Formats: sequence, C-alpha cells, structure tokens
Amino acid sequence: MNKIEVCFSPLQFHLFDSKDAIVVVVDILRATTVITTMFENGASKIIPVKTIEEAIEYKQKGYMVVAERDGIKLDFADFGNSPFFFTPEIIKDKTLVYSTTNGTNAITIGKNSKQVIIGSFINLSTVVEYLKSQNSNVLILCAGWKDRFSLEDSLFAGAIVYELLKDKNFTTNCDSATISQDMWIEAKDNLTTYIDKAAHRHRLKKLGMDDIIDYCFTLNTSNALPVLVGNEMINIG
Amino acid sequence: MNKIEVCFSPLQFHLFDSKDAIVVVVDILRATTVITTMFENGASKIIPVKTIEEAIEYKQKGYMVVAERDGIKLDFADFGNSPFFFTPEIIKDKTLVYSTTNGTNAITIGKNSKQVIIGSFINLSTVVEYLKSQNSNVLILCAGWKDRFSLEDSLFAGAIVYELLKDKNFTTNCDSATISQDMWIEAKDNLTTYIDKAAHRHRLKKLGMDDIIDYCFTLNTSNALPVLVGNEMINIG
Repeated sequence: MNKIEVCFSPLQFHLFDSKDAIVVVVDILRATTVITTMFENGASKIIPVKTIEEAIEYKQKGYMVVAERDGIKLDFADFGNSPFFFTPEIIKDKTLVYSTTNGTNAITIGKNSKQVIIGSFINLSTVVEYLKSQNSNVLILCAGWKDRFSLEDSLFAGAIVYELLKDKNFTTNCDSATISQDMWIEAKDNLTTYIDKAAHRHRLKKLGMDDIIDYCFTLNTSNALPVLVGNEMINIG
Repeated sequence: MNKIEVCFSPLQFHLFDSKDAIVVVVDILRATTVITTMFENGASKIIPVKTIEEAIEYKQKGYMVVAERDGIKLDFADFGNSPFFFTPEIIKDKTLVYSTTNGTNAITIGKNSKQVIIGSFINLSTVVEYLKSQNSNVLILCAGWKDRFSLEDSLFAGAIVYELLKDKNFTTNCDSATISQDMWIEAKDNLTTYIDKAAHRHRLKKLGMDDIIDYCFTLNTSNALPVLVGNEMINIG
C-alpha cells in the first residue's frame, strides 16, 4: 500500500520520510504553474536556483533568467514570474534559469528524495496519472508563503489526495492530507469563489498581478510533467 | 482592529509577530486539556518543563511530577497525562511539574510574547471571553504532533477564530486562520464524528487511551484560564 502525505511548509520537510517517496512540489501562485507553462510551450531545460547571487551569475554567463522576490521582477532579470511571458516564440528549445520567493527553495530541498516532480492545477491530471503508474509513496510539498501555510497550495495537495485515494493502492494517515482533501471537496465545484479567500490572491491583486488567477486555477490545460534530474528540470510529460 | 493568526506548528512560530499578541497554546490531546483540568480542580501552580532531565530534577526536589513521551507515562513520574488522574482530592492547592511530548515545548516557546494562555475545548468560552476583553492581537499556536500539523489542535484554533470574528474588533488575513475556521464550521455540530478523522485519536486508541476522547471534546465544562507568568502557570479564570 502506498502512503500519501502532505507537508504544509518547507520548514517541516525534514519531519517526513522523503527517501522512498515521489515529492510533488506545489507553488500554485506562481512558480509551479509557470514552470509547467514553460515546458508546455517547449522549454528545453529549467535550472532552479535559490539565491539572487546565483541567478546573477547565470545571467552574466548569458542565460535567460527569470527572477522575482515578493512578487516583483528583479531588475537584472529578463522576465518576472507571469506565465503569460513564456510563449512558444520566446522559449521553445531554450534553457531558462529560474529563481522565485518560495518555489525554487521547495524544489531544491526535495532533491534527496526518490524523485521530485512539479504540480499545478494546469497539469493536475498528468501528475495524478503519473503517480498512479509509479507504485510509490507520495509526499506533496507545499511551497507556501515564506514558510507559512498557503491556502492555494494545500488546496492543490487536496486535489491530488482526493484523486489518489480513489485508487485502492493508496492510503493516508496524515492529518494535513485529510484536511487538504476536505478543502478540495469543498472547493472543487467552484474553485474561483473558493480561492478568493486566499491571502496571496489579495497580495497579487495589490501588485496589479491578478490577471493570472483564472489561468492558474484552470484544470488540465497542460500535459507537461516537469521532473528534477540532478540540478535541472526537464519535461517527461 | 485586532489581528488573529494561527500557527500550525511550533517550527513556524518565529515567522509570526508574537510580541504584540496574546498567544493561545493548544494541545487538545492532551496537554492543554489536562492543564485546564488541573486548575479547574484546584491546582495552585503548574511548572512546565521541556526536558526529561529537568522533570527528574524537580522530582528529586520533592515535586509532584507529570511526565509522558509519545503518550506513555515515564517511569519516574507520579502521573501520566490523563485528565482523569487529577481529581480535587489529589491536586487541590498543589504545585505540579509538567512535561509532555508536544505541549510543554509550545508553552515555553511563546514566553516572549505579550502573554501566553492555555486553551482547550473544555474552557473554550472562558478563553474567547477573555480575548474579547483584552483588545489585543491574538496568535493561536497549535502544538501539533512532533511539529507536524494536527487536526484537533487546528480545529480548536478554528473555534476561536469563528467566535472572535463575530466581534467587529477582530479581523484576519491569515490562510491558516481561514482554513481552521472552515474546519470548525464543518465540525461544530458533530464534533465526535469529525475528530474520528484525526491521526492522533487513532494513536491513543492503539495505546488503550481513547477513554479521554469524549472528555477532551466536550465544550465549556471549565472556567479555568491558565496563564504563564514567568516560568510558571497560574489560574486567572
């Protein structure tokens, strides 16, 4: 029987047994939605980096760099963190370097686990079908907001828990998985209304960036499946 | 306007602004329920200690000691962690030393905040009325299970959020407060069924200790209000 657990904050990641689990990293607003979009539109590789200094180094070497902090694009970067920037014309067959407030940290801390994959509402079905095919424990890591609980990330975790528990090869005894699933059951028939409760949704609104909300909460528009291999992400979808 | 926030794990406590907040520590199964019971039955003072070594030192000095780890009473201790041990005959006017897996750590990490009080379902109304009377920010700290999210603690946090938000002097912009409140709204008319989902409830059942469940989830049987003053707890209820 495969175990499903949900970790609400990167600060708690070490409390979970990740060695035998596929880790699904979630940062709905916006890192994991943007990364999925990049691959959907043909990016060849994405290099996640934690610090601004590393991102600047890559920029100096000639890489295309995406970098933001607290929702705002950093001056030296080529792009901020909106999925709308990354059209096929711009990123097909390109390697990008990517550094954001919460998401890239969450991706890199999972790297000693069995595997790290990237989940978002836009590739939900692809993620679920992959997990069902792997016969493995699953640990969903919510990037959160600066290590705090985030509504939209745990809601997505709940969508995965809900789908996997339909399959009799999965079980859970994890309170955060149970509550995430409850959130999804309450939200799933009216996602837009539900996520209006999220604090980060209002943070983005203040920054004039809430044009991406509908996009980030639309299900299954992408078949991309980003996976971390070494220090780079590639698409196995 | 007073802010309400909910911290799901002691690991995240430093992320919150606790200096200007009354911290409500919650460990429903069982520390904060037991502490409230002790004061309800006339205990004079309770000294929370984090380590087993400290608890042993107090024992050697002649104190009455309550100590458990992972739900099980430690050999040297006078009592394990069931509220049923602490009848008035046993603890009226006594000072007790108290050390448990999750609860005492949560009590002591809040000590640089404005004030630390102890909440449980059995003194819910007393806690809520006190908070309403204080005109202060409120931070609810869930002790959790070994720094992980706990269903029963966050459910109690939700009960406080729900009650305080009826008062127009309180507001929240905290995702964990929002979700806790949702949990309470779903659970409040049928608590016993709801908490059957909790992992720790099943842990206690395995240890043959689930006789305390009904007691721990009965509302408002106590007017005690335990408060941390220096390194000791007293009752101001």
